[in-house]
Amino acid sequence: MNIENYIDQIAKNAKSASRVIASASTVTKNAALNNIADGIISSAATLITENEKDLMAAQKAGLSGAILDRLRLTEGRIKGMAEGVRQIVNLADPVGELIQGNTRPNGLQIQKIRVPIGVVVIIYESRPNVTADAAALCLKAGNAVILRGGKESIHSNIAIYRILTSALEKAGLDKRCIQLVEVIEREAIDYLLKADQYVDVVIPRGGEALIRTVVEKSTIPVIKHYKGVCHTYVDEFANLKMAEEICLNAKVQRPATCNAMETMLVHEKIAPILLPGIAKKLQDAGVEIRGCNQTCSILDNIKQATEDDYYNEYLDLILNVKVVHTIDDAITHITKYGSNHSDAIVTDNFNNAMKFTREVDSAAVYVNASTRFTDGYEFGMGAEIGISTDKLHARGPMGLEELTSYKFVVFGNGQLRK
Amino acid sequence: MNIENYIDQIAKNAKSASRVIASASTVTKNAALNNIADGIISSAATLITENEKDLMAAQKAGLSGAILDRLRLTEGRIKGMAEGVRQIVNLADPVGELIQGNTRPNGLQIQKIRVPIGVVVIIYESRPNVTADAAALCLKAGNAVILRGGKESIHSNIAIYRILTSALEKAGLDKRCIQLVEVIEREAIDYLLKADQYVDVVIPRGGEALIRTVVEKSTIPVIKHYKGVCHTYVDEFANLKMAEEICLNAKVQRPATCNAMETMLVHEKIAPILLPGIAKKLQDAGVEIRGCNQTCSILDNIKQATEDDYYNEYLDLILNVKVVHTIDDAITHITKYGSNHSDAIVTDNFNNAMKFTREVDSAAVYVNASTRFTDGYEFGMGAEIGISTDKLHARGPMGLEELTSYKFVVFGNGQLRK
Repeated sequence: MNIENYIDQIAKNAKSASRVIASASTVTKNAALNNIADGIISSAATLITENEKDLMAAQKAGLSGAILDRLRLTEGRIKGMAEGVRQIVNLADPVGELIQGNTRPNGLQIQKIRVPIGVVVIIYESRPNVTADAAALCLKAGNAVILRGGKESIHSNIAIYRILTSALEKAGLDKRCIQLVEVIEREAIDYLLKADQYVDVVIPRGGEALIRTVVEKSTIPVIKHYKGVCHTYVDEFANLKMAEEICLNAKVQRPATCNAMETMLVHEKIAPILLPGIAKKLQDAGVEIRGCNQTCSILDNIKQATEDDYYNEYLDLILNVKVVHTIDDAITHITKYGSNHSDAIVTDNFNNAMKFTREVDSAAVYVNASTRFTDGYEFGMGAEIGISTDKLHARGPMGLEELTSYKFVVFGNGQLRK
Repeated sequence: MNIENYIDQIAKNAKSASRVIASASTVTKNAALNNIADGIISSAATLITENEKDLMAAQKAGLSGAILDRLRLTEGRIKGMAEGVRQIVNLADPVGELIQGNTRPNGLQIQKIRVPIGVVVIIYESRPNVTADAAALCLKAGNAVILRGGKESIHSNIAIYRILTSALEKAGLDKRCIQLVEVIEREAIDYLLKADQYVDVVIPRGGEALIRTVVEKSTIPVIKHYKGVCHTYVDEFANLKMAEEICLNAKVQRPATCNAMETMLVHEKIAPILLPGIAKKLQDAGVEIRGCNQTCSILDNIKQATEDDYYNEYLDLILNVKVVHTIDDAITHITKYGSNHSDAIVTDNFNNAMKFTREVDSAAVYVNASTRFTDGYEFGMGAEIGISTDKLHARGPMGLEELTSYKFVVFGNGQLRK
């Protein structure tokens, strides 16, 4: 099949199915979601068999252990996937909410109503669980979705996709509400990104290079975060024990996540007291420390941080440590090297806390807490489709509400514009 | 000067100034706005002299009367421009609003706070008043703005820009909060559209071709509407007198606007009664009617509408008239040919009214009112920077609130992620 025609057909199908799903009742959408969860559980054996094919191909291709781990479906992960879908059943349906309303002096009743976005494209790498998660979130928010996963997970994705479409049909919904791009050629993405006649938004999830390519090529709005270079600034007025715990948590609790700390900034007045103790704990946890000159003069046996290191999202047990003269220097550093994702200050000083929250221009700004909390569930929004470091439409964790738009419905009785 | 360096410097200046304006108080921003209004009035003579240069060049270049009219600054228009700026003083400052907040079970206090977007680029054609309007709206919403107007209005724009920067300085604000691209070469736009490191959003205002080019080239999010192909559907259950008044208003009250009606859809049951009377009134108002076959069989001496006509945004006294069999046919027509801007139904039937508002996927959907009301002031939002037919971030009229983003501010007392 010609790939351009194939993508064109998928995009058209999605547009047409988006009208069905937009007006589906919450009961119907939840039935489909429960069918998905049931289907995942009852097809566990098939999923593992299909996943095995992907794993073998990946091993043959010599892919890294990290990729193999992301790719792998275990019984536990399959259960987790089903559980994730069931949690979405329990979230409130955002569609139809009356966001605002007023009656104008001329009697026009203006209502701002929450509606689905329409057609969502998700482009992601080789985590098969995203196939189920993303589809379930889009479904609940009343959107048609086109999924394009990494080619390494194609067998796993097709197996999950079969479950999704049969769940839709069982609930009486158009199965084209969820579609998977089954061709693995890259040009499929190029065509998708130009289908602005049918697609309303593209959400890429993956490494910075993938996301930059999507932004360059897309004529459709993109919501994204390039990377998470998150900072914790330990102020001169910090509670040192709290600072130690927060920094340790932000770095080592799950270093491969985008909200993990990559650089710790320490006020010069407390650096000599704080650094030796915290460095020991970090190193005991396996963290490699790369320090500025002053840090290197306090700590023995650490690497020197380079200029490039400060821009780096390690996603690993590596941490930059830099001593700063003032809170302003800390904010300047974050502004220059940060990625507007999640940044924290540890301080007992009210004015410094407020200054930091005002002047640091990030999706989430913390006082006395670990940056690891930037997450839909932790913020009370429910499951998330991703985290945005953009400033348009959605910023920070994107949940069901961020997968919606609105329309103005205006009721009159013959009003004319003067 | 090298244009690439020039634009790069403007973008960097804007980013840096955006930090100043983001935290400016409402009092300071309003002082700057009042200075702008005062400056416009006191510089009226200069504005007219500079505008005269643009008008002469445009005449020499043989530009159309419509363009000359848009370009022209009269004393009345200059007063209107100042008045528009003063109205923005009276609008509530959106910055700092606590949009949502909650305390999590672990004690974290999560606050969603409204903040400026940052740096806004406005690309527009030859209406000098946009220079003042757009700058004033961005200023009030706490954004730095880069203005790029049509080259035909360059002298007028520079004269207005002088007023803007001196107003900022008088209010103690960084004058780089408002910048005008003073080079007229088109490549300046190309560089601007790639300045994603500094610019947060691009808002193009103008014809469809301009907007498509911006979308193609930009690596920065764009908010836009391509065109306004607005419909009024006169249902079989319409109050015919009301239908006549609404359609007449939607077409002729100001035909050059994007919310004016371009196609009237009429249910076949009432077409023979409605059409002769309304056609007469439309024709008396100077409207050229282009009809479908059935319309042509009812009305004499009208043109036949072509397939292309139904896609056309005339912005002029031309109207397509099409007879439809059912409300579903009307909705199908709107879905196919419309631009998701503003569409109306005239009906006394409750179920048809509700069906139309649900199924028509437009920024504004009307029952028994003229589509001409799609406008920030008419909706009670205040002045608008444009109208969006996108579904992300902003849909419909975009006012001050739509020129903002939000951030999450999280207050803790040592919370760690488990």
